Amino acid sequence: MSLPSKVKIVEVGPRDGLQNEKETIPADIKIALVNQLTAAGFVNIEAASFVSPKWVPQMATSSEVMAAITRKPGVIYSALVPNMKGLEAALAANADEMVIFGSASEAFSQKNINCSIAESIERFREVALMAKQAGKRLRGSISCAFGCPYQGEVDVAAVVDVLKRLHDLGCDEIDIADTIGVGTPNKVQTVMQKLTQEFPIERLSGHFHDTYGQALANIYASLEVGISIYHSSVAGLGGCPYAKGATGNVATEDVLYMMNGLGIATGIDLDKVVDAGQFISTHLGRKAVSRAGNAIAAKRVIDN
Amino acid sequence: MSLPSKVKIVEVGPRDGLQNEKETIPADIKIALVNQLTAAGFVNIEAASFVSPKWVPQMATSSEVMAAITRKPGVIYSALVPNMKGLEAALAANADEMVIFGSASEAFSQKNINCSIAESIERFREVALMAKQAGKRLRGSISCAFGCPYQGEVDVAAVVDVLKRLHDLGCDEIDIADTIGVGTPNKVQTVMQKLTQEFPIERLSGHFHDTYGQALANIYASLEVGISIYHSSVAGLGGCPYAKGATGNVATEDVLYMMNGLGIATGIDLDKVVDAGQFISTHLGRKAVSRAGNAIAAKRVIDN
Repeated sequence: MSLPSKVKIVEVGPRDGLQNEKETIPADIKIALVNQLTAAGFVNIEAASFVSPKWVPQMATSSEVMAAITRKPGVIYSALVPNMKGLEAALAANADEMVIFGSASEAFSQKNINCSIAESIERFREVALMAKQAGKRLRGSISCAFGCPYQGEVDVAAVVDVLKRLHDLGCDEIDIADTIGVGTPNKVQTVMQKLTQEFPIERLSGHFHDTYGQALANIYASLEVGISIYHSSVAGLGGCPYAKGATGNVATEDVLYMMNGLGIATGIDLDKVVDAGQFISTHLGRKAVSRAGNAIAAKRVIDN
Repeated sequence: MSLPSKVKIVEVGPRDGLQNEKETIPADIKIALVNQLTAAGFVNIEAASFVSPKWVPQMATSSEVMAAITRKPGVIYSALVPNMKGLEAALAANADEMVIFGSASEAFSQKNINCSIAESIERFREVALMAKQAGKRLRGSISCAFGCPYQGEVDVAAVVDVLKRLHDLGCDEIDIADTIGVGTPNKVQTVMQKLTQEFPIERLSGHFHDTYGQALANIYASLEVGISIYHSSVAGLGGCPYAKGATGNVATEDVLYMMNGLGIATGIDLDKVVDAGQFISTHLGRKAVSRAGNAIAAKRVIDN
């Protein structure tokens, strides 16, 4: 069983990570963070969210951030767009990729957006069309693919169904997200294997949360299936809204440490990511939630 | 590739974990912890260390702890014994298993005990003989099997050499320890595979540290090789003496969460381990270093 020789790491910290922070983070801090991540070598950074500031006040500075970051040619700066209004703002901000989303859990969909999974995806039809017409990349994100905080188990058939709907809308890339971090390697392999029969494997990505410490094992298990795109969050930014005090997104530093050890190319400079993680954690006034990040930072102190 | 259907989890928190704590932990707290772990279903608990209190003051209460714990028939209570004096104390304390040790790194051996690897193992010959004559189990532990804080890389041939020496001394079980947590899955599989050619696989165990967040991925990779004994530490007790502030032993709760998800039997009640982890962490005045432990504890608060 040979693993991919290279992978794409999508850095989601500036959006998926920071959006859960209670304290308002100034735009210039976010801009500095995105610039540091660009300099570290990421080819895809989720930098903004054009949702209503009423729902996610932390993302209210998205237009300002997108306008001020130093863009590197070839790097994809992604933005979450919940509707046409969000798409218009994202187009005005010249986001490179529009991210739409749906849940594999009916209970999650009803509870969060008060409509069925099918309806929620259908509502993105115009957004998808307009994004494509504007020449933008379109990414679809499937939440609760391995379990749901409300209904518990999620059937793989439900994940396949959402995948097909997002595929039908023209998504270039589709994320399989373990929103509450309950997946374990066998389950992950079973689901991923099934999905590769429905969508090109090179455009499927794994978005794992480390709530129960399983994320890296799940990424390794996904590598064995051949998945070659992974999401992660610098310094483990994010947390888990479903269990206060628990960890959320897998930390980018930990993922990079594993990829480096496995000899899998990422094109990213781990040391610069550690710097970015320490920078944002210092700003947030807490220790980074990355084990590799903290160990490397601690070792620097000893070595110097 | 089928994984083992059941594994043995060796709980090392009371010894390998607590020994690094600066503040003296009263014997009754240690006794309560071991009793909670016994009640949780572990069949092997590393409970004591008969090293000189001059070197490891935290373990000075080992005889007291071993005398006062409630022993469950069939459960192996292990003790670290560095020499004949330690063995005598461990025999007097009626430890079920004596643990001897050696490093796979020549630099580590020289730096820590001021002699070569070969000499260090040879010094255990009498200890091993007496332990066996007393009808005790003998376990050998190989540190720095995947890397060394002083010399960096460690050759697999060096690990094999120590393994053979410990085998020759009559060890019933041998631990392969990633003392500084630098292993990644491919390396781990390569080393483990090689060792299974030299020693019965059912008596080889993996002792992984989570310093760089890799432990669970490495355990999963070892399961794929067929390794069925793993060490872990409740609440991630331990820390890393080579990088202050970094994590050490993999947390038992995280390992159990994965085993449960994989359908691999352990005979251990995860909820009771979470309780034990919260108990000792509360005593230590800090948050547990287990992601699963903290997530489960946080969820209990929400659910109640």
